[in-house]
Amino acid sequence: MEAKRVAVAGFGNVGKGVIEILLQKQIQELKLAKIVVKHPDKSRPFNVDPNLVTTDFATVVNDPTIDIVVEVMGGIEDARSLIMDALQNGKDIVTANKAIISSGAEIFSLAAKQRRIIGFRGTFVGCNTLIHDLSLSAGRIHKMCAILNGTCNYILSRMSRLGVSFEQALKEAQEQGYAEADASEDIDGLDTARKIQILSGVINNTFNMPSDVFCEGIREITMQDIQYSRELGYIIKLVGMVEREDNSATIFVRPVLMPQGSLLASVEDANNAIELEDNFGVVSILVAPGAGTYPTAVAIINDLLDIAHGDTSMMPTSSTPIILNDAGDIEARYYLRLTVIDQPGVLAQITRILGDHKISLASVIQKAEVSAKAVSVIVTTYTVREKELRAALAKIDHLEVVKAKTMVIQILA
Amino acid sequence: MEAKRVAVAGFGNVGKGVIEILLQKQIQELKLAKIVVKHPDKSRPFNVDPNLVTTDFATVVNDPTIDIVVEVMGGIEDARSLIMDALQNGKDIVTANKAIISSGAEIFSLAAKQRRIIGFRGTFVGCNTLIHDLSLSAGRIHKMCAILNGTCNYILSRMSRLGVSFEQALKEAQEQGYAEADASEDIDGLDTARKIQILSGVINNTFNMPSDVFCEGIREITMQDIQYSRELGYIIKLVGMVEREDNSATIFVRPVLMPQGSLLASVEDANNAIELEDNFGVVSILVAPGAGTYPTAVAIINDLLDIAHGDTSMMPTSSTPIILNDAGDIEARYYLRLTVIDQPGVLAQITRILGDHKISLASVIQKAEVSAKAVSVIVTTYTVREKELRAALAKIDHLEVVKAKTMVIQILA
Repeated sequence: MEAKRVAVAGFGNVGKGVIEILLQKQIQELKLAKIVVKHPDKSRPFNVDPNLVTTDFATVVNDPTIDIVVEVMGGIEDARSLIMDALQNGKDIVTANKAIISSGAEIFSLAAKQRRIIGFRGTFVGCNTLIHDLSLSAGRIHKMCAILNGTCNYILSRMSRLGVSFEQALKEAQEQGYAEADASEDIDGLDTARKIQILSGVINNTFNMPSDVFCEGIREITMQDIQYSRELGYIIKLVGMVEREDNSATIFVRPVLMPQGSLLASVEDANNAIELEDNFGVVSILVAPGAGTYPTAVAIINDLLDIAHGDTSMMPTSSTPIILNDAGDIEARYYLRLTVIDQPGVLAQITRILGDHKISLASVIQKAEVSAKAVSVIVTTYTVREKELRAALAKIDHLEVVKAKTMVIQILA
Repeated sequence: MEAKRVAVAGFGNVGKGVIEILLQKQIQELKLAKIVVKHPDKSRPFNVDPNLVTTDFATVVNDPTIDIVVEVMGGIEDARSLIMDALQNGKDIVTANKAIISSGAEIFSLAAKQRRIIGFRGTFVGCNTLIHDLSLSAGRIHKMCAILNGTCNYILSRMSRLGVSFEQALKEAQEQGYAEADASEDIDGLDTARKIQILSGVINNTFNMPSDVFCEGIREITMQDIQYSRELGYIIKLVGMVEREDNSATIFVRPVLMPQGSLLASVEDANNAIELEDNFGVVSILVAPGAGTYPTAVAIINDLLDIAHGDTSMMPTSSTPIILNDAGDIEARYYLRLTVIDQPGVLAQITRILGDHKISLASVIQKAEVSAKAVSVIVTTYTVREKELRAALAKIDHLEVVKAKTMVIQILA
């Protein structure tokens, strides 16, 4: 087998890892043929033959000897047009670009037309080991519940284990290099949302991935929530969830309470995990490191090897969109943290409204003082439809005795 | 797509599960066409159309309308000849028979010649979700360390967590239905050995699986070993290990000390787990239930679905045998439990012999009295070649002051 000639566009963190492996590891199926960079004179962590380097996408796209283009430059418009041009010229593509893949119907269609392969393991690097089984078993997976963002999992683990505040934990995540200076993509759940959009496409065998899913981040989780959850036997994790029904799926990203001692709850720090439940109820879980130059670069190398071996099984083949169920129709138990005036009769007002909406309470804790004037009341409900709960809370949050917006967190059974 | 017509040979625990799913789940790709049983008049847990039932293998093997034969009758000779005859007549095969698959070069060769598929996920039911990725990524996996026997893991978990004795834990495993009345296949490591033989074949893409691997069971693990290990920061697990080198592999089954807090160490009770390290050092771990009628039946159904979809990627294609490294060449740290007379100078005699063999000690604990006359001394070594250690222990165990065979357990770094 002749080695595939690979061009790498981008020499940032991930690009550096890919280039380093291609240069140093003597992988017989792959040969580094070109590197596209913005700044050719920038100093690099290792020596690269200057003949390999160009600043011009066109030299790569128009070079008939290049077989595969690795897009790791980031951004959207330039990256997308590079990918489209490369596909048009008959090249296979590997990318770790979540924004592009999660809205990638156009490029997947072109790839199908051109009989080219798009490798995208790097978009969910943490559990990319499962890619063949996720795609080849598409249709057999009933439910996926996944921890996909190392920064959020690190923050929640630190808060839970060491009792540090959200702000402190975020600062530590930034110092550890898990979180960017602007970590909002991570902590507002957008990174997880993109990954779960992509994974929902994979397990539904469609490249027409949902463009918008219900998404809540972890910014409003307080130490109180962590502590009360623990008292109730739970741990808080940010998850992406896909639950398939016959012709539709419920997909969301949100923090949830999950039972202590469950395998998913034991996934700590920057690890990622995917829990799968098949159509027959059998559950398995894959855990893997979710971040870092090296895992992402290795994910890309694995895509390159699959392409070199002619393996197309990781590619979704259908263009049928997934019909999304209304997140308001989620039926679950919920954790509520109410902030109320500490005076007689307050709880009665609240429980009356919940009762009017046929919402039964599983437990009530009233303990910590938020201030001289307000206390937290923690309520867990029995199973209720989310929109019914939201309707009740709209009224409750308007009561004069309620002093802040009520915190709502879904409980995973 | 027309449904594949499936014959199931065997109506024991696993067969019952497969038949139940095929009858009740309306899987459009699969149709139950025949059931081969020994005792047609035996009462069954649910009603089966008597026209489906036969006692004669030949009616299935010679029926041109049967596409796939599921062999779940157990045993060896009858099962193997059924499989060979069915392949000869152009049928695909699914089996959960570890003994047959682990020595299955002949049937895989015939299948290759006949262009038929052999599904064997049921042989390592616990982590069969990974089958596509294990086989399609064959060659990229450097190391596999797996917990593959639910009975052993249950026993060791109970001993470790609750302090119950080996005998008591075994009795509980039998009461829970994890262990057979004769549990020696499990606790002597033979079940794990068969599974690791099969998995080593998968990750080396060969159906010529090693017929005999180094194997130790857990019968001699005492509460002392569990407790001392914990003091030293370890948990004892029975693992199957494959470590690939360029042209050979080290494969063994044995109890090992693994660091507390590692993901593999946290796999408890009857769960199975496969930890994979790829050629670039990235580690991931899959955890799944390792036993029970239902998981095994579902593994078989997944094989049937793969066959219905024409997916052959789980089949090893090479007949090249794996060259096994000598287990004596394992280099590792070791835990030793010596049983010695409690008198001055004993430790000096032992450490002198170890020193003669250039074996350095990392720690020594002397504490519990085994009897009035003997005490346990726990030693951990720095890295040493196993055959060097065995040579030293042969001398040590002959010392007059040493009262029992020294217990040796490898430490996983």
